[in-house]
Amino acid sequence: MIIVAGGSGTRMGADLPKQFIELNGKPILMHTLEAMHHFDAEMQLILVLPENQMDFWENLCGKHNWAVPHLLANGGATRFLSVKSGLEHATGELVGVHDGVRPFVAAEMMVRCFAEAERSKAAVPVVPIVQSLRIVHDGGNEAVNRDHYRAVQTPQCFKTAVLREAFDNAKRTDYSDDATVVEANDVAISLVEGDQENIKVTTPFDLQLGQLIIARRTPSN
Amino acid sequence: MIIVAGGSGTRMGADLPKQFIELNGKPILMHTLEAMHHFDAEMQLILVLPENQMDFWENLCGKHNWAVPHLLANGGATRFLSVKSGLEHATGELVGVHDGVRPFVAAEMMVRCFAEAERSKAAVPVVPIVQSLRIVHDGGNEAVNRDHYRAVQTPQCFKTAVLREAFDNAKRTDYSDDATVVEANDVAISLVEGDQENIKVTTPFDLQLGQLIIARRTPSN
Repeated sequence: MIIVAGGSGTRMGADLPKQFIELNGKPILMHTLEAMHHFDAEMQLILVLPENQMDFWENLCGKHNWAVPHLLANGGATRFLSVKSGLEHATGELVGVHDGVRPFVAAEMMVRCFAEAERSKAAVPVVPIVQSLRIVHDGGNEAVNRDHYRAVQTPQCFKTAVLREAFDNAKRTDYSDDATVVEANDVAISLVEGDQENIKVTTPFDLQLGQLIIARRTPSN
Repeated sequence: MIIVAGGSGTRMGADLPKQFIELNGKPILMHTLEAMHHFDAEMQLILVLPENQMDFWENLCGKHNWAVPHLLANGGATRFLSVKSGLEHATGELVGVHDGVRPFVAAEMMVRCFAEAERSKAAVPVVPIVQSLRIVHDGGNEAVNRDHYRAVQTPQCFKTAVLREAFDNAKRTDYSDDATVVEANDVAISLVEGDQENIKVTTPFDLQLGQLIIARRTPSN
């Protein structure tokens, strides 16, 4: 699994990049890697971090006496380049790409995504859109049928060779979503059921929501 | 303001319709009406409830010793019919339609929506889409640019005459969104800035999120 953590913290309004902000006394990124490790202790974990955050991360690991095994890869200027960097280290037949700031990823969802990727080459978890949707354009905006849309989460899972070929063939480096790169290389994307709790922690509100999810999952005794 | 509360509770997995579930010791619907009343004590509040929930609601008001002034209107078989029923009672130049299970509506947002409705006839609050989006169709699915879309909230605000004409002219009764009825009557919809906290409480997860929002807003002394 490639875990991408390129955040600079600007959306969070904090100086600390969001992946390092603590939830329940531990940086978000540690929660994320632990979720992967607990799902499958043999899973190769490739953490992509901006080069200038490497020392900070290693200090954090020491401070928290934290030892989940993982590889480090240098992040690039865009998500695309970061994933490409991580992908150089991937050795398995399948590979997932996961947002570092989605710490609540459930094991069952990872099972669904990898199984479907094995069957069909490329699979992403999605959730229904629960609010009415409008499309905006130069001339105004209009309602669209939300039932025709899905919101995409991570991990986005692929046959490693398929993801690598798509990244090698890509004509742009500004893709914000990995499945879109694969789709641009003429591979269809399968959709699997996501999870409402698999939130991306990017705002102070999300952080409080994250604390709530952790409190729910922690036995109260 | 027409407040639509037609929920039967099925998505919440509870027997109690979701608008009656308690947040911080008080039914969600009371929080919603209080938000309106505190914003403007002169605002006409028209609460649309299924006929078979009227007695239950009035008992709840007694039990909670709750006396925010409001009119009651009988709900219909669809949201469209419920709003149409409430609209018969509307007397002001402007009218809003709000989901009964959005108790965290902020005063500033109501100001924005009504001001824009006065200027342009019809205004809805929207928030950006923060997740990647895919469109699904018979042949598969594909990525769309989330920057072109907005998620719609309530209150949706209108010149009363404009909303009434649209409802009178409507050819269908299955609209799930009021602005769409107005748009079908050839009136352009203006978009105003919504609020991430203005959530619709429809699942147990939302309910816990709601408790979090209330805790944030309540001074801890």
